[in-house]
Amino acid sequence: MDNFQFYSPTEFLFGRDTEAQTGALVRKYGGTRVLIHYGGGSVIRSGLLDRVKASLDAEGIWYTELGGVKPNPRDTLIYEGIELCRREQVDFILSVGGGSCIDSSKGIAAGVTYDGDFWDLYSGKAVACNPLPIGTVLTIAAAGSEGSGASVVTQESTLLKRDTGSDSLRPKFSVLNPALTCTLPAYQTACGATDIMAHVFERYFTNTKEVEITDRLCEAVLLTMIKETPRVIADPDLYEARANIMWAGTVAHNDIVGVGRSQDWNSHGIEHELSGLYDCAHGAGLAVVMPAWMEFVMQHDVMRFAQAAVRIWGCEMNFENPEATAKEGICRFRRFLSGIGMPINFEQLGAKEEDIPVLVEKFGLGDGRTGGFVALSSEDVAAILRIAAHASV
Amino acid sequence: MDNFQFYSPTEFLFGRDTEAQTGALVRKYGGTRVLIHYGGGSVIRSGLLDRVKASLDAEGIWYTELGGVKPNPRDTLIYEGIELCRREQVDFILSVGGGSCIDSSKGIAAGVTYDGDFWDLYSGKAVACNPLPIGTVLTIAAAGSEGSGASVVTQESTLLKRDTGSDSLRPKFSVLNPALTCTLPAYQTACGATDIMAHVFERYFTNTKEVEITDRLCEAVLLTMIKETPRVIADPDLYEARANIMWAGTVAHNDIVGVGRSQDWNSHGIEHELSGLYDCAHGAGLAVVMPAWMEFVMQHDVMRFAQAAVRIWGCEMNFENPEATAKEGICRFRRFLSGIGMPINFEQLGAKEEDIPVLVEKFGLGDGRTGGFVALSSEDVAAILRIAAHASV
Repeated sequence: MDNFQFYSPTEFLFGRDTEAQTGALVRKYGGTRVLIHYGGGSVIRSGLLDRVKASLDAEGIWYTELGGVKPNPRDTLIYEGIELCRREQVDFILSVGGGSCIDSSKGIAAGVTYDGDFWDLYSGKAVACNPLPIGTVLTIAAAGSEGSGASVVTQESTLLKRDTGSDSLRPKFSVLNPALTCTLPAYQTACGATDIMAHVFERYFTNTKEVEITDRLCEAVLLTMIKETPRVIADPDLYEARANIMWAGTVAHNDIVGVGRSQDWNSHGIEHELSGLYDCAHGAGLAVVMPAWMEFVMQHDVMRFAQAAVRIWGCEMNFENPEATAKEGICRFRRFLSGIGMPINFEQLGAKEEDIPVLVEKFGLGDGRTGGFVALSSEDVAAILRIAAHASV
Repeated sequence: MDNFQFYSPTEFLFGRDTEAQTGALVRKYGGTRVLIHYGGGSVIRSGLLDRVKASLDAEGIWYTELGGVKPNPRDTLIYEGIELCRREQVDFILSVGGGSCIDSSKGIAAGVTYDGDFWDLYSGKAVACNPLPIGTVLTIAAAGSEGSGASVVTQESTLLKRDTGSDSLRPKFSVLNPALTCTLPAYQTACGATDIMAHVFERYFTNTKEVEITDRLCEAVLLTMIKETPRVIADPDLYEARANIMWAGTVAHNDIVGVGRSQDWNSHGIEHELSGLYDCAHGAGLAVVMPAWMEFVMQHDVMRFAQAAVRIWGCEMNFENPEATAKEGICRFRRFLSGIGMPINFEQLGAKEEDIPVLVEKFGLGDGRTGGFVALSSEDVAAILRIAAHASV
């Protein structure tokens, strides 16, 4: 196991009707002038935004608001949010929505206190320092941003999707009411589940030896997702299954399942170019990229992929041919994704094979290439994308 | 899943040589006048105490010290520590040792700022409020106190062992260097492993339905312990196995594996009377009590015990007779404990069957009786202790 530091100071409030306590939590963490940041219609239509405002009113906390966050959140709205916060002397950002909304909130929170272009924090020029405190009311189980210090934003003018990360960006609190996710369409639910599983797999495939505890914790989250996801696709109102998925989504990404080991985020990196270019759902892009990445890198540690196949996908170990076991695991993963309604190749995603050179070039501009499991050349990325383009179950 | 709040703000620094950063961490968390609290000879002999002092010296941080913590820490030393802290205007407690040392440190930290007899906080008369901040340098993987808000202390005059718990008692930081545990004798190592496993089982057996994510996380920790413990018993210097056990011990008890479900701490409660009366090792007492408790309560949810047998102990499910599967799981647990050198009955522990009425009476004075899985009458406790008295593999 590698040496590590782990610090996850977010207070989680989980369960039915917990959003009623949002105002009290904002007060607890020192918010007096709040920006409520959200996306579009659903939090308005569902009445959630009104309930959150009522809980702030009950505490006598002043707020302003900025809606309009889109999936794959844009830098343009963040610039607007930073200006608004400075003008109104906002001291707390409250995100009401899913991962895109939280990531946008983190961009604003870090940007307000940064003396320069906030994009510097995403392009790697600078590191977030003393961002405004953030709280979240989560509406989608997916990104894990409610418990992480990570944020991903797309630059409107270039469609570059870049990330930043710092413990200082971990939310002070996150309110998780699984009932809020019951109205999510099946496709979005499945996209979220895919993202959660990817967050775990990107920690699972590692060069670090002897990491049984985090291996097992990774498997715990994945086994839960494999059991619960098809249940909510079949019956969206299953609160208990929604609850298990929601907490699994947080555990998957606050790094408790990933400490002490090298991690490999190249699948996420490659996917960011897909959703950056096509504006497809992040989870859908991952469903196409991740099994292809697995097939491409499998040879670097066949026994680890075979372990995944046995422990996660219930394959029987073929001791004479562990590679067959490993392949069967990847095959079951892709079949699982297809079964919950995810695309598994370029055509289903709406991507084009002729764009591969563009995707490879954009990826090359980032810094994700050096994975913690397998470093990729541009040719490797192209090969992975070609596998992804033509995959079938 | 039940509604829950989860807040684990401890910063963990894990790995080789991490104790060298203790001084920097004390500074980070505001300590300027430190009480170093420790047990006896081992931290002195190993040079650890000197290394920790050197790291405080390097930061120019003033400290005083109080050694002498014993296993099953006593109220008497805590009174002494409280007086010392008040006299010396200590503002930070640094525990260098195992769970007993951390629990004693928590007693002092809470007692210094409490206007009354600190025992009130353990007898249930009062709740800890604004305790002094605590940091820990851990030397034994066992209690999980390095990441929890719990503390257990024995009253010297009555041998009553009582606990308290509050998020405010969670350490600000904990330094975990697995190499420090390599010198532990096999018996103490096994006691620690038993305690870790008990912390998980006491969360696993629950009345809450549909808690797949925490079930799986519990199983993750237990599977790790089952794999790694025999390895370090056989070869104490296996750093990697020590590392997996040490982190498993923290994960087992910061409640990430237990949120959203009823928990049942009656095995711990009953054991506290054993170690209170005989001053035996806590883990050894648990090895005797816990399987007996399992046998006694199994009928309340045979399928849950069968699930444990299959998922944790690798039993095959007997669908015609799940009770047989459940029993086989408990049997394998006891065999495992015996295999790592733990006592499994009263004789091996050094307890006496004729003391059962005394143990039952002492237990009745506490408030642990109402378990979150099965509430126990005094007769039930006596029955469990009789099973424990005569157990064999």
